[in-house]
Parts: sequence; C-alpha cells; structure tokens
Amino acid sequence: MVANLPILGITMGDAAGIGPEIVLKAMSSKDVYSVSRPLVIGDALLLERTQSVARTNLSIHRIERVAEARFQYGVADVIDLHNINMNELKLGVPQVMAGKASYEYIERAIQLALRREIHAMVTAPISKEAMNKAGYHYPGHTELIAELTNSPEFGMMYVTPTLNVVLATIHVALSDVPRLIRKERVLTMINLTDQTLRRLGIQKPRVAVAGLNPHAGEAGMFGREEIEQIAPAIEEARKKGINVSGPQPADTVFLRAHRGEFDAVVSMYHDQGSIPIKLLGFEVGVNMTMGLPIVRTSVDHGTAYKVAEARLGDANPGSLLEAIKLAARMAAAV
Amino acid sequence: MVANLPILGITMGDAAGIGPEIVLKAMSSKDVYSVSRPLVIGDALLLERTQSVARTNLSIHRIERVAEARFQYGVADVIDLHNINMNELKLGVPQVMAGKASYEYIERAIQLALRREIHAMVTAPISKEAMNKAGYHYPGHTELIAELTNSPEFGMMYVTPTLNVVLATIHVALSDVPRLIRKERVLTMINLTDQTLRRLGIQKPRVAVAGLNPHAGEAGMFGREEIEQIAPAIEEARKKGINVSGPQPADTVFLRAHRGEFDAVVSMYHDQGSIPIKLLGFEVGVNMTMGLPIVRTSVDHGTAYKVAEARLGDANPGSLLEAIKLAARMAAAV
Repeated sequence: MVANLPILGITMGDAAGIGPEIVLKAMSSKDVYSVSRPLVIGDALLLERTQSVARTNLSIHRIERVAEARFQYGVADVIDLHNINMNELKLGVPQVMAGKASYEYIERAIQLALRREIHAMVTAPISKEAMNKAGYHYPGHTELIAELTNSPEFGMMYVTPTLNVVLATIHVALSDVPRLIRKERVLTMINLTDQTLRRLGIQKPRVAVAGLNPHAGEAGMFGREEIEQIAPAIEEARKKGINVSGPQPADTVFLRAHRGEFDAVVSMYHDQGSIPIKLLGFEVGVNMTMGLPIVRTSVDHGTAYKVAEARLGDANPGSLLEAIKLAARMAAAV
Repeated sequence: MVANLPILGITMGDAAGIGPEIVLKAMSSKDVYSVSRPLVIGDALLLERTQSVARTNLSIHRIERVAEARFQYGVADVIDLHNINMNELKLGVPQVMAGKASYEYIERAIQLALRREIHAMVTAPISKEAMNKAGYHYPGHTELIAELTNSPEFGMMYVTPTLNVVLATIHVALSDVPRLIRKERVLTMINLTDQTLRRLGIQKPRVAVAGLNPHAGEAGMFGREEIEQIAPAIEEARKKGINVSGPQPADTVFLRAHRGEFDAVVSMYHDQGSIPIKLLGFEVGVNMTMGLPIVRTSVDHGTAYKVAEARLGDANPGSLLEAIKLAARMAAAV
C-alpha cells in the first residue's frame, strides 16, 4: 500500500451479471494496486462464492467503513452491504433483489465520494431492467448518479486510447433527439468536454462537434439544427476561447479524431457516438461522467448475463481495469 | 481487349472536382482492362487537359457510340458529350455548367445501360450543389438514378472487404427518419439486400437489421419502432426463407458483421451506416444501388473540390478502382 495513492470505491454492479467476477479479477491485479488504493462496495459473501468461477484467491476482508481498509495486495477490502441472499440469487436473470442491491452500492459510493472518504468511484455493470423491477426508474447508470449528486448539467464521455467521444443525448428514442439538440445543451457539452480533457492532462484541447443530420445538414438541405442550434453554440464557445470546430459531418469526424486531428468529438445522440467507440475500442473502452462533483468512471459494457450464467470464468475485466486506471489518473489530478 | 469481358460506362462526374483525374488514373490501370472493357462518358477535351495533372499518358479516343470503342489498353475511349467550356470552368467551385454536364453523363450512361450497350455503369463523384444550381433537384446521385430508371424500390449498399451496409433511408433530416421506418420499407430493404448478396456470389446470405433507437429500443423503453415496424418486417422476411436477424443494437452489430457473423447490415439511416463504413473502409469503400434494372456502382466519396483546385495530382483513385471491379463482377454474374 502506498499512502498517497487515490482511494477508489468499486461498486460490484448487478449480482446476477459478470460484475462480481470482473471485480474479483481486478482486485487480483497488481496494476490496480500500483495506481490506487481500491476497495469494493458490494456483497462479501457473493464475492467469496464467486472466487472459484473467477479463479482468484483473495482474502475477502469485510469492512463497514473506509478507515478499516488495509489496501493490501491479496486482501480485497469489501464494504459489505450484505444485501444478496445467495439462496435466492439466479444468475443471468434480472431480479428485484439484485436491482435493489445495485442501487445501494451506488448510493453508498456516492455518499463516500461526496464526503471525500474515497477519491473516485468506478462502477461495474448494472441491469436497468432489474433496477426497474426494484422500483428505481432511471434510463441509465449515468442519469442515476447525476440525480443522486444533484448535477443538472452532466454528460458522458467514452474514453479509448485513440478516440474520446461525448454524447449530447443518451438514453432517449431517436425521435426525441432533434428537439433536445438545443444551443444551450450543445454549449454545455462543449464546455464540459473542454474541462474534462484538461483534467485528463490535455493542455490545449481540440474539440469537434458532430452534426445531427446527414452531411451535417448540407447547408440546411437535410435539416436545420446545425444552422439554428449547433453552429451558434460553437460560435459562443469559441468566443470563450475554446478550440472547437464543427458542425462536422458525422461519418468522417470520428475517423479524423481517431487519426489525431481532435482530442474529443461531441456527438449528438447515443448510437452516433457509440458506434465508432465500439468499433475502435471494444474491449478497452471506458466511460466517465462529466459535470459531477465527484470522479466517476465506468465499464462500457453491460451485465453480460449469458456469460455470468455459464459460470465459465471467461468474463473479460479489460474495461474495468481501464476504468480503474482512468479513475486513478483523474482523482490524482484533482 | 478480351471480347467477353463486361463493357463498363464510367461517368466523369463533376468537371470541377477530382472526377476527371481519378477517371484518367483508372483508365491507365491494367487491372481495369483485365476485368472489363471500360469506356468513359464525359468531356474529352477536359480529360485531355487533365492528363498533365493526373500524370497519365493516354491516347484519348473520342467516340459517339459504344460500337466505335477499341477497348485497347493505353487508349481511353470517351463518349464525348463535349459539354464543358474550358475557358469558363473553375476548378473547386460548384457551377451550373458542370452540374448540367454531370447530369448529362448520367443520363447517357443510363440510356446505354438500359439498351444493354454497356453492361454496368460506374459513377465518379458529382456535386449536389452544382446540380441544384443547374436546376436538377435531387437529394443525391442514387435517387437521381432511381428516378431515371423508374425504380420505386431501391436502396444503397456500401461494399467493403469486411463489411456490407445498406441504408434504409438516405438523404433526409434525422427528424424525418422515424416516420419513414415502416414495416414495408424495412422488408423491401431486407429483400433487396438478400438478392444483392446472392448476386455478389454469397449463396446463403446472413442479413442483420440494426435497430433505430439506442439499444434497439431496449424492449420499448427508448422508442417503439423496433416492436411495431422493424421486428414484424424481419418476421415476414424469415417466413419467406431469408436468413435475417434483429433488430440488433446498432452499436455492436457492425463490429459483429465486420468480424464475420453477418454478410450485410441493414441500417436505418445515413449516419448509422456510414459511420462504420468510413471508419473501416475509408479508401477502399464502394457503393452500389440495389433494385435497379441495371448494374450501377459508385465511389463512396465526394468531389474533393479542394484537392481538385490544388491541381497536385494527388487525388486517390482507390475507391473508383474498387467500384469498377465490383461493377465488372456484378455485370459478369447477371
């Protein structure tokens, strides 16, 4: 343990998914301990029972408070919420118990982060369906965390080795997207993107904004949002000194960024930004939430219920490891 | 010249763009003559004058009818519409003269293809703006060709070495897309895709259909088009014996196809399909039009006015060469 490394709270995610397995694998990684002091917020018994699947050999150290953590490699400190009944748990299925439990891990992590007992939170995948069943109605992980931290202006950035992408809208029907693309929202996203890139250590960020319509509207021929909303937001951001270009045609801007021309692309909707990310950074992708009072990073994949149900131990912890490294880097920079 | 190779009509495209340069480069390629009997439909004097930029040394052979063509390597047969005034032409600028001329090349090529004097047409890039100025109001090249061939049910397929993508809607504002995603249209696209893949030599095509909304709507949480329109179309296509799956979440379906799981993906709108294509096949991409009574392939890039204006001879003929090879393959298979 190195005392000045950032303390990270890793939420276990949905108990019926691959969260427990990848968390154990991450806690067995020396790399993780070389950049952080990690602890898990989850269910200790479930983690204990998942060790045979994950093929890990950790000593599970149940704790109630961060102060009790040892942060010693080989020992997994777990803030044990003890909220999974092993007899009732069904792997691979969305269920009330696991949905409620996931919510509680997140709630606790946020509490600890706001009190600065942990320096960042890193989240394993949850199931929206399970959360819904348990009565927590959020379109996604990010929106839930934004609400619990009272953050009205937030955004999501995918971070990969060659491409960073922000989503200006996230979990909404495509037919709702055009009316949500307002100047104020685009400007907020540009601002958050610029700030976030600076926190990632880029001194003079170059931000590109994608258009909403084909060919960025082609001078108004295929839609006017570029002219009426997006371009004015870019203009205003430029006046504030942000290096931002666009609206760029969406079908080439990601390639240009990937090749080094921009540090991040602000995309207008979920699939516009996530298609290139999944193509270019499938197993190493990470996402982080911008605009929160705390540092939060996340895996960029789901619960992989089928993989969890098979219990073959082949869940890939790659994205979680990257999310941990990114959280450590950002927490250290704060 | 090999007499049984397919005869291809290559339209010169917009005179102010890189069309003439890449056409000359393609006509200087032995590969092109090894798979086809090519001829150009364009302006012979402009092509002659562009040879210094293109660094080609072809003998330009002006002809009026296909029957006059020699199809001899080193000699470029050109059906000369003589519709560019070299004194008036401004490179790199959309203009009436060039817009009108591009239209005439296409019109002639279609005429020849419908009469079976040529076996396929291959199109160099046009400028929609120039065509508009000249009074031809079409959202794109594909729509123009569909109209001139009286083809109400058509579609566009991007073809790359690892990924084939169909666009169910093309040049429309994003806000118009949801209402255009009707069962009938999706079914037509699945049918055309299956037919086209068979013509490309794939005996048992595997087609995937992308969802419209994030996570393919996540069981109706983010939009109902998947449930009400897309899934019923897939169901009906399956009943006809087509191997088709979906609606698949758009952010992973292209990667799955790229890795070999599907032979083509039917995407719901322009950027959904063109983002992955540009990322994966930037300089070798080709597109073709499905549902026409003729074979038509095209480059997948624009006029590159800036490159044309610079006159440095660095326009890349890669996409045109691929479009020619694809046209030859499809014409031979008809």
